[in-house]
Amino acid sequence: MKTIDVCLSPELVHLYDVEDKTVVVVDIFRATSCMVTAFAHGVESITPFANLEICREMKAKGYVTSGERNGEKVRGFDMGNSPFEYMGDSIRGQKIAFTTTNGTQAIEKARGAKEVIIGSFLNLSSVVKNLLLGENSILIVCAGWKGKVNLEDTLFAGAVVDKLRNYIEPDCDAPLAAQQLYTIAKNDMVKFLSTSSHVKRLNRLNVFKDIEFCLTPDQYKVVPRLIRGILKV
Amino acid sequence: MKTIDVCLSPELVHLYDVEDKTVVVVDIFRATSCMVTAFAHGVESITPFANLEICREMKAKGYVTSGERNGEKVRGFDMGNSPFEYMGDSIRGQKIAFTTTNGTQAIEKARGAKEVIIGSFLNLSSVVKNLLLGENSILIVCAGWKGKVNLEDTLFAGAVVDKLRNYIEPDCDAPLAAQQLYTIAKNDMVKFLSTSSHVKRLNRLNVFKDIEFCLTPDQYKVVPRLIRGILKV
Repeated sequence: MKTIDVCLSPELVHLYDVEDKTVVVVDIFRATSCMVTAFAHGVESITPFANLEICREMKAKGYVTSGERNGEKVRGFDMGNSPFEYMGDSIRGQKIAFTTTNGTQAIEKARGAKEVIIGSFLNLSSVVKNLLLGENSILIVCAGWKGKVNLEDTLFAGAVVDKLRNYIEPDCDAPLAAQQLYTIAKNDMVKFLSTSSHVKRLNRLNVFKDIEFCLTPDQYKVVPRLIRGILKV
Repeated sequence: MKTIDVCLSPELVHLYDVEDKTVVVVDIFRATSCMVTAFAHGVESITPFANLEICREMKAKGYVTSGERNGEKVRGFDMGNSPFEYMGDSIRGQKIAFTTTNGTQAIEKARGAKEVIIGSFLNLSSVVKNLLLGENSILIVCAGWKGKVNLEDTLFAGAVVDKLRNYIEPDCDAPLAAQQLYTIAKNDMVKFLSTSSHVKRLNRLNVFKDIEFCLTPDQYKVVPRLIRGILKV
């Protein structure tokens, strides 16, 4: 029987069998929101790198380098981690080399899965449709913040569990917890998250516009997929 | 400033600095509920063992051996993991050697802390009072189920965060998530947990009476404390 489960931190991925599963990696603020936005605006591919220096070297090979550490753009990189940077015509057809504090690390840990797709609120319904039509059991891997559980990725996991509730019943506690939290938060996620540690951190960096955008469901229909280490749609 | 945080799985303890903290270890179903019950009925000490065979050997040294694996009593041990086993007069003054699937493993991982105390709903208010009067920052470590996050331990963490909310503001997302879940659940925790994986597992083992009891706040006032590897009150 098809199952759905939620891994609340990349540090817990080893507890799950992923070989036969579709893993959805989510890093709402802001890696996977950026990736989805970029593909919706025509980038050719995104290659995720957990290691910053290896990512940096890709510039010499014709890649656009994108990166963030601790919420701020990496010095010398072409682009940072705001979805609004990934909307221009200039990125159409480009190959991006991408590294972030949490999101690309989570993708790295999910590599053993049968299928890895990229989720965000921006492509929520398309992700849900893909999961519903697919045959594999599902594991949502939340990127969190440096291994710790965060609210925004948990809410996304809860949204997916909630939208699939009539088709796939969660059997574990993490999806139930995530679904309950999403149910409380869904009518005003910005307000619900206003006390969260990551939102406080991002507000200090003046990216409130990013927060609002990253919490807006169904702006795009693309579902990026990891194929031999490279994300494509 | 005094802080409060929640570690939702023993597998995440390494992400937290515990040396200067009071760690509350919680395993509602049922290790820490049993420990609190036992001390309330006069046991002299409980020595937690992560390793089952080492625990077994303590019988020859005059200890009562208590143990559970996967929810069931260990063959050859004197006692299992139901709080009702720890209420009789016969355990008064005894030393217990204790090993369980999750609870004693979580205590093992918390050993580096400045102070380790044992929490359960049964001694909730006394734990909260201790934390409030203490000087250390607080980390609640949930035992979970084989490393995965579970609802009942998360609810206990949420209850502590909630009761301390006017004194200590949580700065991280895990305590906020736990507090939100406790707020939804608190009026009928048995019902809230009826879909949880662990409660389903325990119901299969016919321990519904245990579940109800372990979710009853403030039955006892004891707060067991780990001193040189041994729990005492």
